[in-house]
Amino acid sequence: MQNNHLFKQIDFIKEIDKLKYIQRKTKLFNSNRHENDAEHSWHLALMALVLVEYSNKPIDILKVVKMLLIHDIVEIDAGDTFIYDTQKNHTNTEQELLAAKRIFGLLPEKQAQEFIEIWKEFEDGITDEAKFAKSMDRFEPLLQNASNNGGTWAEFNVDYQKVYDKKKAIKAGSSTIWDYAENLLNESVEKGVLKKL
Amino acid sequence: MQNNHLFKQIDFIKEIDKLKYIQRKTKLFNSNRHENDAEHSWHLALMALVLVEYSNKPIDILKVVKMLLIHDIVEIDAGDTFIYDTQKNHTNTEQELLAAKRIFGLLPEKQAQEFIEIWKEFEDGITDEAKFAKSMDRFEPLLQNASNNGGTWAEFNVDYQKVYDKKKAIKAGSSTIWDYAENLLNESVEKGVLKKL
Repeated sequence: MQNNHLFKQIDFIKEIDKLKYIQRKTKLFNSNRHENDAEHSWHLALMALVLVEYSNKPIDILKVVKMLLIHDIVEIDAGDTFIYDTQKNHTNTEQELLAAKRIFGLLPEKQAQEFIEIWKEFEDGITDEAKFAKSMDRFEPLLQNASNNGGTWAEFNVDYQKVYDKKKAIKAGSSTIWDYAENLLNESVEKGVLKKL
Repeated sequence: MQNNHLFKQIDFIKEIDKLKYIQRKTKLFNSNRHENDAEHSWHLALMALVLVEYSNKPIDILKVVKMLLIHDIVEIDAGDTFIYDTQKNHTNTEQELLAAKRIFGLLPEKQAQEFIEIWKEFEDGITDEAKFAKSMDRFEPLLQNASNNGGTWAEFNVDYQKVYDKKKAIKAGSSTIWDYAENLLNESVEKGVLKKL
């Protein structure tokens, strides 16, 4: 029984290796190399640990780190959804839920349930932990794009207002980080790497 | 002051992006693609969360996760040291300490100190948290090599005894995972992908 329990966990550990092949639209800092989901998840988890003092509310940082480490695992099945993609935005929710059930379902039942709950909590974005985790997820690509002459904003012709509407989710997690982010958006407009229509 | 504090943290966040370029000797599961340090750190942190029940001792899992997320950051300056490299093994300690001071030193002073302490605690391998973290660091490449017909064992002619000597550190963190690991080593010998001299 003990062994079967561990075997399931090791199956999960092997399966999630595939996250290292899921390419994001965004590129590394000052770079032309696309980031993959595993690297991205690592970076966000560490950002949360470094920036936790700026959370608007007291939070359980261990839960935030868990959320960030697993938040993109569903993309192993469902693929990366570009944040400014207007067609795929809503339709992939069901696909992602199926993916969560399949992949976390490799774990022993109680642990699978726990991971699915944490993933859903992140997706729902209602709790203080989910809000702070989401603010990290929005902040990293903003820093990357600003370092890459506009990055995906320039590449996919995304204008200031569209970026602003997505990025203001940062404010729900941290108004201090939002102040920094808003300044960076304005600087990007001044530099001409983010267009105001 | 507040801003200067945040600016330092963001400098650190940008700097550690370089971990995504540090290639390890080991390759991904069933793959010919080398793993990088950021992906590796993500995988270990999540493995620790999944496998924490097997720790020999009760542990502070948040500290373990912090250790694993930052344990290889010094390699941005010092480079990856192959675990079976007999020449570089000891000489890089000073270089790594300099790297820790430079990179974590980008953070505000108190936070820099905290990260350096956690990194040293991992390196020393004495506390229960460090022992469990190190067992994850030894276990992942073992799973990878076993999935890759011997991987770096075969590629660099590393025999069973040398692997065994490095891998038995797993036992200090978790005797359950060590039992699994020892079986896997024996299976690898039977399959002919790990040589007994």
